[in-house]
Amino acid sequence: MSDLKLLFSPRSIAVIGASKKEGKIGHSIMANLRESGFTGQVYPINLKEKEILGFKCYPSIKEVPEAVDVAVIAVPAELSVNVAQECGEAGVKFLVVITAGFKEVGEEGLKREQELVRICKKYNMRMVGPNVVGILDTHTPFNASFTPGAPPQGKIAFISQSGAMLLAILDWSRSVNLGFSRMISMGNKADLNEVDFIWAASEDPQTSVILCYLEDVTDGERFLEVVREASKRKPIIILKAGTSQAGARAASSHTGALAGSNIAYDTAFRQCGVLRAENMADLFDLAIAFVNQPIPKGKNIAIITNSGGPGIIATDSVERENLEMAKFSKETTSTLRDHLPPEASVYNPVDVLGDAPADRYRTALEAVLADESTQSALVLLSPTAVTEPVKTAELLVEMRQKYAEKPLFASYMGGETLVEGSTLLTQHGIPTYTFPEPALKAISGMVKYSKMRKALHEAKAIESLTEASRQEVKATFYDVLRDKRLVLLGNETTRVAEAYGIPVAPIYLVNSPEEAVERAEAMGYPVVLKIASPKIIHKTDVGGVKVGLESAQEVRNAYLEIMESVNRLMPGAPIYGIEVQKMMPKGNELIIGMTRDLQFGPLIAFGMGGIYVNLLKDVSFRLAKGLTVQDIEQMITETKAYTLLRGYRGSTPSDIPSIVKTIARVAQLSLDFPEIAEMDLNPVIAYPDGAVALDVKITISYDKLK
Amino acid sequence: MSDLKLLFSPRSIAVIGASKKEGKIGHSIMANLRESGFTGQVYPINLKEKEILGFKCYPSIKEVPEAVDVAVIAVPAELSVNVAQECGEAGVKFLVVITAGFKEVGEEGLKREQELVRICKKYNMRMVGPNVVGILDTHTPFNASFTPGAPPQGKIAFISQSGAMLLAILDWSRSVNLGFSRMISMGNKADLNEVDFIWAASEDPQTSVILCYLEDVTDGERFLEVVREASKRKPIIILKAGTSQAGARAASSHTGALAGSNIAYDTAFRQCGVLRAENMADLFDLAIAFVNQPIPKGKNIAIITNSGGPGIIATDSVERENLEMAKFSKETTSTLRDHLPPEASVYNPVDVLGDAPADRYRTALEAVLADESTQSALVLLSPTAVTEPVKTAELLVEMRQKYAEKPLFASYMGGETLVEGSTLLTQHGIPTYTFPEPALKAISGMVKYSKMRKALHEAKAIESLTEASRQEVKATFYDVLRDKRLVLLGNETTRVAEAYGIPVAPIYLVNSPEEAVERAEAMGYPVVLKIASPKIIHKTDVGGVKVGLESAQEVRNAYLEIMESVNRLMPGAPIYGIEVQKMMPKGNELIIGMTRDLQFGPLIAFGMGGIYVNLLKDVSFRLAKGLTVQDIEQMITETKAYTLLRGYRGSTPSDIPSIVKTIARVAQLSLDFPEIAEMDLNPVIAYPDGAVALDVKITISYDKLK
Repeated sequence: MSDLKLLFSPRSIAVIGASKKEGKIGHSIMANLRESGFTGQVYPINLKEKEILGFKCYPSIKEVPEAVDVAVIAVPAELSVNVAQECGEAGVKFLVVITAGFKEVGEEGLKREQELVRICKKYNMRMVGPNVVGILDTHTPFNASFTPGAPPQGKIAFISQSGAMLLAILDWSRSVNLGFSRMISMGNKADLNEVDFIWAASEDPQTSVILCYLEDVTDGERFLEVVREASKRKPIIILKAGTSQAGARAASSHTGALAGSNIAYDTAFRQCGVLRAENMADLFDLAIAFVNQPIPKGKNIAIITNSGGPGIIATDSVERENLEMAKFSKETTSTLRDHLPPEASVYNPVDVLGDAPADRYRTALEAVLADESTQSALVLLSPTAVTEPVKTAELLVEMRQKYAEKPLFASYMGGETLVEGSTLLTQHGIPTYTFPEPALKAISGMVKYSKMRKALHEAKAIESLTEASRQEVKATFYDVLRDKRLVLLGNETTRVAEAYGIPVAPIYLVNSPEEAVERAEAMGYPVVLKIASPKIIHKTDVGGVKVGLESAQEVRNAYLEIMESVNRLMPGAPIYGIEVQKMMPKGNELIIGMTRDLQFGPLIAFGMGGIYVNLLKDVSFRLAKGLTVQDIEQMITETKAYTLLRGYRGSTPSDIPSIVKTIARVAQLSLDFPEIAEMDLNPVIAYPDGAVALDVKITISYDKLK
Repeated sequence: MSDLKLLFSPRSIAVIGASKKEGKIGHSIMANLRESGFTGQVYPINLKEKEILGFKCYPSIKEVPEAVDVAVIAVPAELSVNVAQECGEAGVKFLVVITAGFKEVGEEGLKREQELVRICKKYNMRMVGPNVVGILDTHTPFNASFTPGAPPQGKIAFISQSGAMLLAILDWSRSVNLGFSRMISMGNKADLNEVDFIWAASEDPQTSVILCYLEDVTDGERFLEVVREASKRKPIIILKAGTSQAGARAASSHTGALAGSNIAYDTAFRQCGVLRAENMADLFDLAIAFVNQPIPKGKNIAIITNSGGPGIIATDSVERENLEMAKFSKETTSTLRDHLPPEASVYNPVDVLGDAPADRYRTALEAVLADESTQSALVLLSPTAVTEPVKTAELLVEMRQKYAEKPLFASYMGGETLVEGSTLLTQHGIPTYTFPEPALKAISGMVKYSKMRKALHEAKAIESLTEASRQEVKATFYDVLRDKRLVLLGNETTRVAEAYGIPVAPIYLVNSPEEAVERAEAMGYPVVLKIASPKIIHKTDVGGVKVGLESAQEVRNAYLEIMESVNRLMPGAPIYGIEVQKMMPKGNELIIGMTRDLQFGPLIAFGMGGIYVNLLKDVSFRLAKGLTVQDIEQMITETKAYTLLRGYRGSTPSDIPSIVKTIARVAQLSLDFPEIAEMDLNPVIAYPDGAVALDVKITISYDKLK
């Protein structure tokens, strides 16, 4: 990874296109740099001015007496390439190209953008943008952007592909007093992209949670490698926009981004331990939770309420969010029974009743936070005549310090009468909501992250294969190519599959009835015979298939009948011969497939196979890149096929490890050979010992070769 | 329906337990009555006082010079029964029993509550509660409750099973300035319940939307009848709490409510046209939308934005919420192209660009609102240097009046700089959100309601059956009863099914090989023979089943073999004979079933049948009560079975009308005979012409008889 430390802690910043005129972008950037408290050198570059906002001006970056770390470019697009060239010559390390008018405006802009990239490579500069609002860091501190002011200082890094979104969030952050460590506008991402900024934020000691607004991922395979490591360190929450078909169109007209398919993004985020926010509110609810509270040890939550209805709503939400109600020990329950009024509920949710003053909340909260089964807590308060919202808030702040390892959330259900209390809570880092549901959604996100992080740490990569296996596949593909085909025949897919240890039902290409009988005798009856011809797709329609052949005589007759029928119905079709395949006993029918995602590479599918694949849609997905054994196991358990494999209604369980291995081999094959465009193993039959693919389809495409 | 007009527009109100002491509930009620502006007579009842808050006191309700319309009871529980008795004698029409200490505290309280109900019946009084906060109406106006103050006047009726929830919402309503027409605390619902209050609100000209917080439904079958009619008039939105297993426990410890199963509630709400809110925020987002905006004509929405990112997020949300992006006419698109800058996007979402002043929003909004395809519109605004949030808001208010029939929503994405504009919008009834997603969720709810309401108006009830059919079923059940059984035998289920016109594969009970052959010859080969004995459940295990019998000889042999095997393996089991059934050709296997819900009565299931029913869980549900032909048709389309029935992969479509008819007949049978506890038709085989049940199971239970 390239080191972006200097980009975010520069010793010197030049502003090319700096201006004295208020309202000009080049002026806003200067004003922000001055007001941000940046302690390094600032060099406004302007041909005519002597100084701007007290900083000495230079007519060109080349006149600046040192090689600056960061040059912010805010000149018209036509001048940008020349300016970048001068920066390169002057030894600038990073460019932040505010200027718009590149890829997003069409062909000419794209060429200009490519020119910028070429110059950056030549001079070993890295670039943010073009077409950005800029970047800022509240701890360095500096603000090299044209934002109207800066956000409060805090621990959230916000990385945005949309400049407007960054401006909107900045404006909003001030009214809710939400602090940020960094804000980064990525613009067209011609050079540096989300992967670089996420990695940099993961290394930044002032950042504790990383938020992204993304419309696409620039380099999916690098994302899979790097972000996985980053999320071992810090929670990463992404709102991926452009998920809808219509949304994807809007994305591509907006920044020229090519939105990948939704399922691949979902899978990529999960495999990398990234939390995917459903909407804007969730994005920030999660951020606030992570910034202020420890990560819960598990999903058991205690709820304390002063009224029944809100307690029920919270309990419903616990189930909906896949959390669990903590089961208190007998000691806790009897402590509660001893110290709460007799009508109070001492089970979870604990109901301290409508007349509860702060002290009664204290009794309940101390008891449940001390209980081992409590891994997080939510306190609900609705206003009654005797409620003490401020005192109760103070108590929560105290408890938060005492039980620092257990996340504590609050829902103050009401309005005016609770504002003082809820403000106090928020100020002291206890996330507080009007209604309880968002609190539980946020806690659930934290638990999910904690599980994903654990899985990342424990993950075991799938086995690589030997060079010999690859040689055999290459040789087969060469045969296919020489034959000017892109779809493999049955015996070819068998060669490829077997080379990678993917079990397939034996299949042989034969050219005479005698040879067919010989193969059948060797593999054992019953067998199937199928015509092998690149021109015959629907073999059954031309009498090209004969099943359930039980003897040498039947095989011989079948061979002759197939040949006769095919010659009569498809005269002139090139015939490679006839394929002899062993008929396999019945078992659970599965599908294992691979399709190639534009962003993230091979996407592996698993589920119930056979003729109803499209009807049942019982399929789960994982990306091959970085795939772990645990990923595969989880992928299997997500399907209904898993219920069958475990042994449904008393049937013998199937050999799941051999299915895991087969999936791993399919993934490895797809990674080793980017020219494989698609692969379908359907059905794969699972038995109590082993699994066998009956039909394997492989299509190659040389467009996909890099 | 009983008329509650006098309850909500009383001419006189007595407060029994009125008090002069501040802090006492009996004082709060008096203070609220005085402050509410109630213009009728108020009679405080108190033994010792002469007057309270300026109202003349009476020592007893019997001393009051007129028969009062509403008596609010706030005396200790022990006195409540006597007080109710006196109210009855004094000719009171409605009781509002604030007092707690009834069903919710156990056995003794339950008895006391039943006593209250008995007195009410005797004197023809109706009762709210017991255990309530009270009721209020801001238009009458009056406030007969101990709420701290009243909500702003408005058009929302809020009906709450939780008093704390009502207090919390009231407190909150004042800080967000949300108006209510009525607030009703239902408490233990010993007499009047949600059905009565929903109906009353549907008749109230001051109410335009009805909100409920419910923990259970008291009388499910009446709910299905009445609420369906109410929601033809006004939108009804319900938050049903206690959906989780844990939540259901909390509900039953809270108000002694017995929470019904979630699926039955979901189905009931849908069949009644009720919108089910997922959480508290949704409940009020929907209410605000309905109160302020017309119901959209359909799901086509236009989005106008001044920045790309938020536009993409909104577009994603359109898809997620099952809305559709309006497709503008060529005229609209060219108007937009003529009047917007060249970089603007003139397709939906319309991007007026970051430098858009209010006037540019006007151009765009006028064009898209005038377009026929636009059925609702959402305007997004993020802050930039030149944005005019207030002017844009003023323009939206103007457009809202001009295009009054098209709902208009806004999302002002930002904070401080947008507050003035967004406040202006809210004040003028344009629902405005920080982020766009909740706007689209609310619009989607409106579209859903509009569809449901249309369906309710067009609904066609299922056909009733003749008395003769019922006689045949009764006779069969009588035979079963005489035999001291609760599970019907094959030939008995056939009698019942055929009486109701449910097609079953012919089955006959025979007692000799000759009779078996005779039946087989009459129905045609192949046939199946099965042993008929109430003691033999697993017939195959004792050699009690022979399938695929093709001739008289095979039938004769099978008969003798079954008898021999059963006599050998199950000596002494009572044998009724052997059942002869026709073997049916293959077709799509379905299941049609019935289970009885505690709250809502017969719940009908439909889906893919056969041995994988439990694995595939491809089942949809409807309640039999009030079931319409349209409900059944929709129920079928919700399943994957529907894909098969329409003709999957080129197979001939099945006879869907005959399946609709069969489901209707099963529903009618379940309604006519509450003693049928469960019914399973699995499989039902669907053919291109007709459908036939192969196996019908009916279990009766006399606990279910009312």
